[in-house]
Amino acid sequence: MPRAIPAIRYPARNAQVLLTNRPAGVPQPGDFTLAEADLPRLDAGQILVRNIYLSADPAQRGWASAEANYSAPVPLGTPMRALAVGQVMESHADGFAAGDFVYGFFGWQDYAAVAPAAVLHKITEDVPLDAAASLLGINGVTAYLALTLLGRPVAGDTLVVSTAAGSVGSFVGQIGASLGATTIGLTGDDDKVRRCIASYGYAHAINYKTANLDAALRDCAPKGVNVYYDNTGGTILDTILRQMAIAGRVVQCGTASVGSWLPAPTGPRNEREILTRRLVWSGFVIFDHMGAYALACADLAAMWQAGKITYDTDISHGIEAAPGAIAALYSGANTGKKLIQIT
Amino acid sequence: MPRAIPAIRYPARNAQVLLTNRPAGVPQPGDFTLAEADLPRLDAGQILVRNIYLSADPAQRGWASAEANYSAPVPLGTPMRALAVGQVMESHADGFAAGDFVYGFFGWQDYAAVAPAAVLHKITEDVPLDAAASLLGINGVTAYLALTLLGRPVAGDTLVVSTAAGSVGSFVGQIGASLGATTIGLTGDDDKVRRCIASYGYAHAINYKTANLDAALRDCAPKGVNVYYDNTGGTILDTILRQMAIAGRVVQCGTASVGSWLPAPTGPRNEREILTRRLVWSGFVIFDHMGAYALACADLAAMWQAGKITYDTDISHGIEAAPGAIAALYSGANTGKKLIQIT
Repeated sequence: MPRAIPAIRYPARNAQVLLTNRPAGVPQPGDFTLAEADLPRLDAGQILVRNIYLSADPAQRGWASAEANYSAPVPLGTPMRALAVGQVMESHADGFAAGDFVYGFFGWQDYAAVAPAAVLHKITEDVPLDAAASLLGINGVTAYLALTLLGRPVAGDTLVVSTAAGSVGSFVGQIGASLGATTIGLTGDDDKVRRCIASYGYAHAINYKTANLDAALRDCAPKGVNVYYDNTGGTILDTILRQMAIAGRVVQCGTASVGSWLPAPTGPRNEREILTRRLVWSGFVIFDHMGAYALACADLAAMWQAGKITYDTDISHGIEAAPGAIAALYSGANTGKKLIQIT
Repeated sequence: MPRAIPAIRYPARNAQVLLTNRPAGVPQPGDFTLAEADLPRLDAGQILVRNIYLSADPAQRGWASAEANYSAPVPLGTPMRALAVGQVMESHADGFAAGDFVYGFFGWQDYAAVAPAAVLHKITEDVPLDAAASLLGINGVTAYLALTLLGRPVAGDTLVVSTAAGSVGSFVGQIGASLGATTIGLTGDDDKVRRCIASYGYAHAINYKTANLDAALRDCAPKGVNVYYDNTGGTILDTILRQMAIAGRVVQCGTASVGSWLPAPTGPRNEREILTRRLVWSGFVIFDHMGAYALACADLAAMWQAGKITYDTDISHGIEAAPGAIAALYSGANTGKKLIQIT
């Protein structure tokens, strides 16, 4: 792929998407405002990144929320916290040079002046740049690490994945299949069912909106579910928990099916299932595991180069596409990792 | 303690407590019938055990129930499944000799003819015989293994235990304190609060029925709860989950506060807590861990001999006391391990 250093056009304006309203649930386009700022000035120890691909991620709902969470809420009036792939234009930091491609917290804006701590990954693998925001982004690395560290499927295990055609689930199926698991994907429409089977490593796929999930799962998993990789929570989770095999592992990686947690909605109590089935139910947040990030990328890139894993991106163009991108994720309309290309 | 072999009085009658009604919830005295049978005949490979202490355990509710569980329901008309400490009267099995003291599934009856698989532990430690049914019984060994294998407290951690003065919780507090944890016991009356502090290793104890549990816990655990050892489930569990520290461990060892699971009662959904706090919530059933049983007993007996752990028993006399013993456990009236001495 071309990796030339674009010409820096000083003085330039920095287009930004500001969070200007605290959303009550999934952020909507009206919660954001397009604005322009001066090109940021580079302090000592910082790098100037010109963004190429802005990322839209389900986790942004939590970042924009005032609810207790694993990260502080984005302050109103500031650029929306977001991951992006960009190129270093100028570096005042050791370990970075103009021309480097980087992936990290650069926000929904054209340019970011950031400390090296904002960089999650310096992209050295020979993959297309959009792969750096999907396969080697938090989606692919979450799938890889949450499945291998917490789910731990072994050959012959039955692995069930919710939002199986999503930006994480599409990798979980492929990685699980490569580990020898019997993979079952849950998704909400028939086109995604087909993609699960055709592209994402699933041996079985169930449309939970049209099928009787409980009965369909018993057909596909007659010996019970050894690993449930859950991105949705809610009633799908309740159903799968009651079909877990003894000593099964439940990986809680998201709760996308629940619109608001203030207050927490109710559901059937699950502690008896945990006890009698001797489950291990764990929560996974990628930012606890940054020490393993580069190792996961090396393995994922090698799988891609060997033709053993594919990734899909859903690319919009122009920063104006960003404000509606999170709501689109939650509507279930997109397939593949949602990116906004801005250069 | 005296360990003489009692004289075998052939022919003798075998008093038994039969399960004669399937309980809907906690087994009551009326669900059982006292009966007499002939002394059992010993088949090849079996041992004849004369019971000394019959055990009453919360798990018997599950064994007597027709609900899906980790063991098959006790058939109606047969002796109630129960643990007991007894002495081998006659042995047709390798590894056992007349005079050996044993702990295992010998049922609520005077005599049992059983295969060696029914024996959980051959008592070789120098402890009183009632300790073999409490400290070295499934209560003490569950406390020891569930806490060390799943809870994994380290020095400085905050450990919360429900039914803290119970037959398991009373050991969890002492073992947790010996590992350097700050121990907080939850219990349902003020006398048990005092016992928790005086005898069971708790630095703090809370009467959850009279205190505001949420506020009282925030006072005792200002940095959050690293390990929650749960024997109750229900609303106490919901409260503690919302005060867990990041990467906390929840050990599900019982669900005593919930009367019936058919159907499962509802409560606030907990998957968001698991995710955002990155909890590990595990179920523990002692029978998965029998390979570690003798090692745990050796350590627990050494702690007792060194004066580092105490145990309390609540001993009734005569097999007629057995039918009411499970209901008494669930009423919260007893302290210490409930045993029925029958010789």
